[in-house]
Amino acid sequence: MAEAATAIHLCDTAVTLAFSVLGKRWNGMIVSSLGGGRATFVTLRRAVTGISDTVLSDRLAELAHTGLVARTVDAGPPITVSYALTESGQSLLPILSQLGEWASANLEVPAH
Amino acid sequence: MAEAATAIHLCDTAVTLAFSVLGKRWNGMIVSSLGGGRATFVTLRRAVTGISDTVLSDRLAELAHTGLVARTVDAGPPITVSYALTESGQSLLPILSQLGEWASANLEVPAH
Repeated sequence: MAEAATAIHLCDTAVTLAFSVLGKRWNGMIVSSLGGGRATFVTLRRAVTGISDTVLSDRLAELAHTGLVARTVDAGPPITVSYALTESGQSLLPILSQLGEWASANLEVPAH
Repeated sequence: MAEAATAIHLCDTAVTLAFSVLGKRWNGMIVSSLGGGRATFVTLRRAVTGISDTVLSDRLAELAHTGLVARTVDAGPPITVSYALTESGQSLLPILSQLGEWASANLEVPAH
């Protein structure tokens, strides 16, 4: 039997790093939701079913730190804080979309 | 300011499910490594730097349960156990590859 996998590394470090961000619960959903355009905190909380204010706030800070999401404050009145994908975040959308299609076809997804 | 993200769901359930499998540490690397072809346990342990026997064993069982990896026992002699991607696992490779490229371009990856 041949052992073909001796030196195969499909850019492991990068994949691991991607999952360290995207593998965290909610982050994929938040990025997907922002794919529809700029949104306020309240809009996002409604779109990401089940997330709490505290966790959404933490995740948005992380995603901003990683450079996927940008936070904008509109001085108003009224003062409005909104969130949008950066160019980096936008470029992730087609990959998330493919991953979703793959999962639908290959994993047992509960009906929705 | 328009709120465009009211009803945007990019197949969230499927994406979440994909991350529940792939977001688990090592799983992406194991699938990537098996992208090079069928491999024995020992070959895999060498390819996935830093993983322990117990964890690799657990992860392979999970990936087999999810239908991404198939385990084959060759009666020998000597008895040889090997692992390979299923068709479902194979179809994930190009997406993992894109995710790796995206991460390299957009996240701060330590030099390797």
